[in-house]
Amino acid sequence: MKNDRLIFVTNDDGYSAKGFAAAIEVAREFGHVLAVAPATPQSGRSQAVTLFEPLYLELRHREEGLEIYSFSGTPTDCVKMAFDHMLGDRRVDLVLSGINHGSNSAVNVLYSGTMGAAIEGSFYGCPSVGLSLTDHDADADFGAARHYAREIVKSVLERGDDCSRPLCLNVNVPDLPLAEIRGVRVCRQCRGVWREEFFRQEHPEGKACYTLTGNYTNFEPEADDTDEWALRNGYVSVVPVQVDMTNYGHLPFLEKILK
Amino acid sequence: MKNDRLIFVTNDDGYSAKGFAAAIEVAREFGHVLAVAPATPQSGRSQAVTLFEPLYLELRHREEGLEIYSFSGTPTDCVKMAFDHMLGDRRVDLVLSGINHGSNSAVNVLYSGTMGAAIEGSFYGCPSVGLSLTDHDADADFGAARHYAREIVKSVLERGDDCSRPLCLNVNVPDLPLAEIRGVRVCRQCRGVWREEFFRQEHPEGKACYTLTGNYTNFEPEADDTDEWALRNGYVSVVPVQVDMTNYGHLPFLEKILK
Repeated sequence: MKNDRLIFVTNDDGYSAKGFAAAIEVAREFGHVLAVAPATPQSGRSQAVTLFEPLYLELRHREEGLEIYSFSGTPTDCVKMAFDHMLGDRRVDLVLSGINHGSNSAVNVLYSGTMGAAIEGSFYGCPSVGLSLTDHDADADFGAARHYAREIVKSVLERGDDCSRPLCLNVNVPDLPLAEIRGVRVCRQCRGVWREEFFRQEHPEGKACYTLTGNYTNFEPEADDTDEWALRNGYVSVVPVQVDMTNYGHLPFLEKILK
Repeated sequence: MKNDRLIFVTNDDGYSAKGFAAAIEVAREFGHVLAVAPATPQSGRSQAVTLFEPLYLELRHREEGLEIYSFSGTPTDCVKMAFDHMLGDRRVDLVLSGINHGSNSAVNVLYSGTMGAAIEGSFYGCPSVGLSLTDHDADADFGAARHYAREIVKSVLERGDDCSRPLCLNVNVPDLPLAEIRGVRVCRQCRGVWREEFFRQEHPEGKACYTLTGNYTNFEPEADDTDEWALRNGYVSVVPVQVDMTNYGHLPFLEKILK
């Protein structure tokens, strides 16, 4: 059974990121692996696609049961390249995107290249899991994240098929030693926003340049059913993601004001 | 009253796009205008943010009641720059993103730089309208789009405040002469996906390169309450957009399989 499975792995920190290697390591325990990640870091790329530039694909590693490529586009481009060009008729059992260096909880799901790729994977009818560790360090310890990735991937592969539409999960692991993590919480996306500051620097040639920094503002710090609450309280957060952006609650109001 | 209003305008085709000028023209009828658009075309950028590159802001035009800037980031970066750096305490009455050259109906809402900026605008508590014309031509005729933009902006400014949360609208105008458009339809986002083909070319230096092309597959061509149906039948489609990506329907199933 194991050897019949095919897992597609991608990432938004690029093919040389430690978190990409960690995701591949987990995926290999469950089947053959095709891995395609951006050639360069693509954090914050959301579900962007590259429309007007030619893109380059490069084989980086091949061994029995594993192929790793870099692709010069976005994480979403990597998914499209794999499913529309490389896979042919081969069926993928799971898309694994990550393990991201940094949190993708709350509103970050919208900015995240990791989650952009996971959502794109679900467009191909596959269950998909976006995995993130709340530690931006390039040399972060992915031990606990690998442990929970393994548990969640196993559950989705073995029991996820009962679901009407493919599952798409936004999984975040707190930056704690495995022994201190209190388990998995199924959550909803926390409401809140980033308030940015643009750090201004005078360029040597005289033009000012701006670099984005910011702080997250939690609009509902007391609610205990959100991903932010789970992470702050030592749990792994799992939010199921959907792609219908329609605000059904606003439909009747709009009908009224646009007549 | 009119002169107290401030409208923020952005775009994803860049500050020199014809659709950006069309949106500014509409916005000026309702108040003062601050307009910040990317320095270069940013179609398909989704809600991407630029995390690690310094960005440059340039004043392009100033006259009474109007300032136009270019900014070297994404459409979402333009919104953040305006709200977090340029506006200070000034209150914005509406964010207008567009008029995009090309449709942003259905699943395109997720890939669209125009809608990424509109959604970002709603994060600042402003009503926001993303406007698109289903014609990719750089020299497209925005006559009908301007007409409906004016109607919808007027309704949102005058009557949108009754809403519990700020309205965020995905408006698409069919590529038809004004007289042939049958009116406005409030819709939901159509289900469907793009199936891409990567057009492969051999690079002169020997490396193959790939360019993204594709076709949209409508999963529910018969449903008459979707934006795709409205556009195909000569209506302007208006979909209210929300930013909670939680798939609430999947929560109980997940609780079961992750225990």
